[in-house]
Amino acid sequence: MSVRTSRAKGAPPAAIAFQGARGAFSEEAARKLLGPGIAVLPCERFEDIFRGVKEGRAAGAMVPIENTLAGSVHENYDHLVNFELPIVAETNVRIVHNLIALKGVPFSGIKRVFSHPVALNQCLDFFARNPRIERIPFYDTAGSVKMIAEEKLTDAAAIASSVAAEIYGARILRRSIEDDRRNFTRFFLLRTPDYARRHPIRVDRRAPWKTSLVFSTRNVPGSLFRALSAFALRDLNLIKIESRPLRGKPWEYLFYLDFLGRADSPNAQNALNHLRELADFLRVLGCYPKGA
Amino acid sequence: MSVRTSRAKGAPPAAIAFQGARGAFSEEAARKLLGPGIAVLPCERFEDIFRGVKEGRAAGAMVPIENTLAGSVHENYDHLVNFELPIVAETNVRIVHNLIALKGVPFSGIKRVFSHPVALNQCLDFFARNPRIERIPFYDTAGSVKMIAEEKLTDAAAIASSVAAEIYGARILRRSIEDDRRNFTRFFLLRTPDYARRHPIRVDRRAPWKTSLVFSTRNVPGSLFRALSAFALRDLNLIKIESRPLRGKPWEYLFYLDFLGRADSPNAQNALNHLRELADFLRVLGCYPKGA
Repeated sequence: MSVRTSRAKGAPPAAIAFQGARGAFSEEAARKLLGPGIAVLPCERFEDIFRGVKEGRAAGAMVPIENTLAGSVHENYDHLVNFELPIVAETNVRIVHNLIALKGVPFSGIKRVFSHPVALNQCLDFFARNPRIERIPFYDTAGSVKMIAEEKLTDAAAIASSVAAEIYGARILRRSIEDDRRNFTRFFLLRTPDYARRHPIRVDRRAPWKTSLVFSTRNVPGSLFRALSAFALRDLNLIKIESRPLRGKPWEYLFYLDFLGRADSPNAQNALNHLRELADFLRVLGCYPKGA
Repeated sequence: MSVRTSRAKGAPPAAIAFQGARGAFSEEAARKLLGPGIAVLPCERFEDIFRGVKEGRAAGAMVPIENTLAGSVHENYDHLVNFELPIVAETNVRIVHNLIALKGVPFSGIKRVFSHPVALNQCLDFFARNPRIERIPFYDTAGSVKMIAEEKLTDAAAIASSVAAEIYGARILRRSIEDDRRNFTRFFLLRTPDYARRHPIRVDRRAPWKTSLVFSTRNVPGSLFRALSAFALRDLNLIKIESRPLRGKPWEYLFYLDFLGRADSPNAQNALNHLRELADFLRVLGCYPKGA
């Protein structure tokens, strides 16, 4: 499904909001899920993308929720709870760092490389093999490609996604120069309930469904064990669990939990009703087909 | 206890290794736990600090393990498992971003601010209130203070820890300019088992003890529930749990778990023996007094 093609007169704006510059990995995730032709709305802060969807400036938001090296993005879990935008799809993107320069610039001409420090630090083996190349921190991975293109730098390269190379008309000199290839980010696509109803996402009917929820319990011994009994007694398979201390409430915890199954199945409904008895707070964040 | 004072002829080097430049938040954590007089060994990568301790170049390592906004540092959990260095203490540091300039430079003279992009992005309200000030990404928070001091820049400031201001002889112009004060990082102090035996850390006897462990189960429905029964049946209180997919082994998971109590108590020993029956893999990462 392409969001652009689903746009009609009087329909909400069809852009997908994400945090970062054009060509960010979030844009790569949005293209992977919705096709290369989507319209996008780059935003400065995570909060802006939630607000953009809530206030109708965007048709959806593409939100990174966890990374295999860096962990869960707690800030976005907070926004999921506060903005009440349902998750309608997920996708996983491998974070591939490419060395990108202007067309016609050879690898031997590269004297300095710009990128976000996190990306530079994930390519240390490349720099160890090429000690003549200077590392220069920049604000953003994709933004460093943009800057090189605008300034027409012929002795410099950037480290960014392949989408960034394409958007700014640059060329990939070396693909996948990251030290650790086990670097994946999981993204959620969020929509307003109303938009999601009118524009259901096209679904791979063979994919299993996942349900994501957040709940809290008082921290008495065994409270999590009792909460999980709601799923174990019904043979529902958990695929993520994570505790997070509730700030300002010592010994109280928020749990993120994903299970395999549709939230509206009778079995899951029984589990959720059972959990509701045990939890101080429970919110289903969304039910969506498992991402590739 | 100061590591420096515990040094003796023939003893291992007394420096505490950490990732980042002098004045990094990891150095702040090390001072908080071991006193202001400690010797330190700044390293480029997380792996370097584990290797430094393992190979006897450092007396200990100060390792960030989770942040309240950014989540668990999975890479360091991997190193904990691989290097087998026990956790001997923990501490929590509030990440306070300060605006730092050379002595004599007034706030009105600041035209640009250098820092790590993550720090710059955590101070967006400050920049919104001061639109005349340009944000310039730099490699490192503490490193940006060092650069301003070395280059004697009088129109620039950096965003970094108060320890960085002290180390580089600079002055804090504005304290705590971060948008969200709920920004804490939890650090572990690691030592070799031999060093930890010979130099036991001074302990607050009133602090409860925590035990951290890692285990894996096959993902059959209820396997985590059964694993947690080992603790629930013995009234042991869990204070952290987190699942992480095992790469290359679909549907198998690693769990990080902390519980309140000493690993060598009879109750905990029974729980660990019970968990050993149920888990494919189990490693106790350490047992230490709960940090402030």
